[in-house]
Amino acid sequence: MTVSVLMFDNFETLDVFGPVEIFARHKEHYQVLFCSLSGGLITNDHGVSIMTECLSAIKEEIDIFLIPGGYGTRVEVDNLLLINEVRRISKLSTYVLTVCTGTSLLAKTGLLDAKYATTNKRAYDWVLTQGPNVKWIKKARWVVDDKYFTSSGVSAGMDMTLGFISERQGVEFARKLAYTIEYNWVEDKDEDRFFEEYKISS
Amino acid sequence: MTVSVLMFDNFETLDVFGPVEIFARHKEHYQVLFCSLSGGLITNDHGVSIMTECLSAIKEEIDIFLIPGGYGTRVEVDNLLLINEVRRISKLSTYVLTVCTGTSLLAKTGLLDAKYATTNKRAYDWVLTQGPNVKWIKKARWVVDDKYFTSSGVSAGMDMTLGFISERQGVEFARKLAYTIEYNWVEDKDEDRFFEEYKISS
Repeated sequence: MTVSVLMFDNFETLDVFGPVEIFARHKEHYQVLFCSLSGGLITNDHGVSIMTECLSAIKEEIDIFLIPGGYGTRVEVDNLLLINEVRRISKLSTYVLTVCTGTSLLAKTGLLDAKYATTNKRAYDWVLTQGPNVKWIKKARWVVDDKYFTSSGVSAGMDMTLGFISERQGVEFARKLAYTIEYNWVEDKDEDRFFEEYKISS
Repeated sequence: MTVSVLMFDNFETLDVFGPVEIFARHKEHYQVLFCSLSGGLITNDHGVSIMTECLSAIKEEIDIFLIPGGYGTRVEVDNLLLINEVRRISKLSTYVLTVCTGTSLLAKTGLLDAKYATTNKRAYDWVLTQGPNVKWIKKARWVVDDKYFTSSGVSAGMDMTLGFISERQGVEFARKLAYTIEYNWVEDKDEDRFFEEYKISS
């Protein structure tokens, strides 16, 4: 399966590279491609500068479309060219996975309307405004509805990716993958200890 | 503090970007720079292609030198030019942090001789050959000796980075940072459940 990762300036580093680590080390099943609206170098305020292909090159059905979050989403939700591309490619994709505030970009396309989804709880109120017709779930490590996998904040993207792989290749396979990167995988998508902490701190 | 990250072809994606996510989102304290032997684009077999500066530009003392692992280390331990640069820059650094098999590159310089250190336990036997005089600790999430912080496999680099920040800015600060990225931080450097799993599977 190919994994096309949407890139834009000021993406969140781990939103991208957590899932990429998990997919890409499993090369016989998943091949990763980084894509952006205009191609070329995409940078963020963590000092990361990464080379990308052009989104417009995606013309046929793809397997997985991964949409990360980050401060850049605050700008990109109003970038009509990008939102149109996100809608077009999401329709072409067998699965669409979003991490953190990346859900805002997918919500903005309207494709999540009447579907269950989650996002970063610290940016919850803002993301909601991008998809008022989405059935938002606040307490979840990640949420699955139809072909859409949406995750909670940053690190939750890794748990979601392992959950996605678990559905495809079995839980034992996903556990072994988590073990090879010595990652403490939260296997239960409804187990969200950060929701409790959020309630305490907010 | 500046964090200079050593990059080389076929670095492990999360070894780099896990710690970078944690350091860089804390911009008022840490600034990240990616450096490689010749500068320019550095790629790995996860499809990541990242822009770097030249290591030779580092001429004065730096705060933190971060050395990731990955399959590339198997080649780079025999790259005398690179090992000499790793030695030179490690001496210039207030702290040196290694992730996973990145410890092999530091061990090869001789700077870890007679010091405690750890590494990826699945590559343990190989890494040992790169530093026969290092006091290796197999069961550890990460190890601290003098200015050297060495971590276990891949994800352990994130726990070590939070541990490093905890020593500097306090445990509550590190916990809050882990919370903002919804990361289940293993706070105890001696808590290593993967050691037990390794014993079972090997």
